[in-house]
Amino acid sequence: MVSPTSPVVNIYPLSSYTFGMKEPKMEKDTSVADRLARMKVNYMKEGMRTSVEAILLVQEHNHPHILLLQIGNTFCKLPGGRLKPGENEIEGLKRKLSSKLAANSLAHQPNWQIGECAAVWWRPNFETVMYPYCPPHITKPKECKKLFVVHLSEREYFAVPKNLKLLAVPLFELYDNVQRYGPVISTIPQQLSRFQFKMVNS
Amino acid sequence: MVSPTSPVVNIYPLSSYTFGMKEPKMEKDTSVADRLARMKVNYMKEGMRTSVEAILLVQEHNHPHILLLQIGNTFCKLPGGRLKPGENEIEGLKRKLSSKLAANSLAHQPNWQIGECAAVWWRPNFETVMYPYCPPHITKPKECKKLFVVHLSEREYFAVPKNLKLLAVPLFELYDNVQRYGPVISTIPQQLSRFQFKMVNS
Repeated sequence: MVSPTSPVVNIYPLSSYTFGMKEPKMEKDTSVADRLARMKVNYMKEGMRTSVEAILLVQEHNHPHILLLQIGNTFCKLPGGRLKPGENEIEGLKRKLSSKLAANSLAHQPNWQIGECAAVWWRPNFETVMYPYCPPHITKPKECKKLFVVHLSEREYFAVPKNLKLLAVPLFELYDNVQRYGPVISTIPQQLSRFQFKMVNS
Repeated sequence: MVSPTSPVVNIYPLSSYTFGMKEPKMEKDTSVADRLARMKVNYMKEGMRTSVEAILLVQEHNHPHILLLQIGNTFCKLPGGRLKPGENEIEGLKRKLSSKLAANSLAHQPNWQIGECAAVWWRPNFETVMYPYCPPHITKPKECKKLFVVHLSEREYFAVPKNLKLLAVPLFELYDNVQRYGPVISTIPQQLSRFQFKMVNS
């Protein structure tokens, strides 16, 4: 039997991290329809899509904040992306985090410590809607997306693609805000509630 | 670093459990106002209220269902309740589960195996609203409620108080249904999404 103690996450102030800029990372698709069509083509070739995303935590005023990438003026997403066929999910998430947030110089790679799985979402059809379970009667889901808590070191340098903005959004802003952040990101506060956050003020 | 593998929960068919009836367990309060007033009195005597609740899982048609206690025709709650001052949360949850769902005979006590903490909710004020984090600037929360996954054995006998109904509600019914189940119960599917459910068909 698993012990019911809560995992501990150290959270450092936003100000202990340094942010720079790098070349743009454009979205592969310019519309939702294009995106779903590309998913379908990939599914025919490689089967179910597996994607991994990171919950990166910082604190301001002793309240946890999550780092989100903003595209344009409204759409926000977690850093992460699709695994290659057969790729290990931890290694794949490190690769995706470096591609989205690390400097190009190999000397400046953040120490990505991939921690606990926080949630798993399923896409039953080639549609935008996802569920936190595989719905009954769905034998061939089209995507499985896993969210992991990443334990950041006390100091890091992040390089943000020019076309994106990196935002630190407080839990109280995400909570109950499905209109702005969608069903996956707006329920991160509930998924994180079992953790013990240790606010480290350096 | 914690390994990011998902915990496994065996889930047995609803039909492998037996249900009986026992004497009614009345609610202590007849209105929300009474309940909040009683909370205030207890807070003055004992400090922050700590409550523990159980997520009991069964399956039907290979889909996970949660056992909820229904009071009257609409209100549903998880089995559980308030800890005594200083009481251990695991022991306290076992005590509450036996009081709500076990036969009075000590020979028929279910094997309550209290597992993972699934979520923690905070009540900042003597009001009904709770949050999955302690809101900033709240130094004296009035209640902390913890939800635990309980690993049921393959066969058990449950005795349900006469004035309550025990319902097995599928995850797909809870999901995105805050109107019917409230914010705590309706996001249980997201909190459980990280688990690997093993449907055992006996």
